[in-house]
Amino acid sequence: MAAVTIQCCAPIAREPLSETDAAELAVLLKAVADPVRLRLLSMIGSHAGGEACVCDLTDAFDLTAPTISHHLKVLRTAGLIDGDRRGTWVYYRIIPEVVNKLGAAFAPLTEPAPNLELTPV
Amino acid sequence: MAAVTIQCCAPIAREPLSETDAAELAVLLKAVADPVRLRLLSMIGSHAGGEACVCDLTDAFDLTAPTISHHLKVLRTAGLIDGDRRGTWVYYRIIPEVVNKLGAAFAPLTEPAPNLELTPV
Repeated sequence: MAAVTIQCCAPIAREPLSETDAAELAVLLKAVADPVRLRLLSMIGSHAGGEACVCDLTDAFDLTAPTISHHLKVLRTAGLIDGDRRGTWVYYRIIPEVVNKLGAAFAPLTEPAPNLELTPV
Repeated sequence: MAAVTIQCCAPIAREPLSETDAAELAVLLKAVADPVRLRLLSMIGSHAGGEACVCDLTDAFDLTAPTISHHLKVLRTAGLIDGDRRGTWVYYRIIPEVVNKLGAAFAPLTEPAPNLELTPV
């Protein structure tokens, strides 16, 4: 294990975003800027085997199946998740390349810098 | 310098978010889920000295001053930026602790794991 001391700030705060990049990032952010969709994304990503049946997701919320389906569709349209129908149910999984675009914009620096140190523990 | 090989996925995709955490994170995400606000945030964070005069920000957009002020207020209300009036103008700066909450949710793993290695360069 290693402790990583990070310096301020996220890439988004280190150089001006272009209009195009800002527009693309805003589409992803709008898709996740909802408590139900954030919880759905976290439940799908952390589910055993890396995918979750829509039946499990719907049972976890006090919401109707059509409402859950709407939120899943928003996440899927943004490219954050994908799904396959197998038998009765659709199984959803995270698309890490797309989720990681959010991480790339907001992650603190990970490369070493004068005020960053990697410390073996 | 060190190369960091990261594994999939973001923390948000590794364990289910609580309702409370999801609600708090959604407030921050809604504040940044707009192309103009993303560009404002990146311009403030990357400005010389770590702060930007509202006069510089307004000049960079083909938008009215009240529209820019509205977007700055949304960012400020969410706690992502703060501002001080000095003379005629307000000067804005990033609040890194709050911006980094977004990074913490979406950043890929940084701690070592079986498929992660830290390589001195």
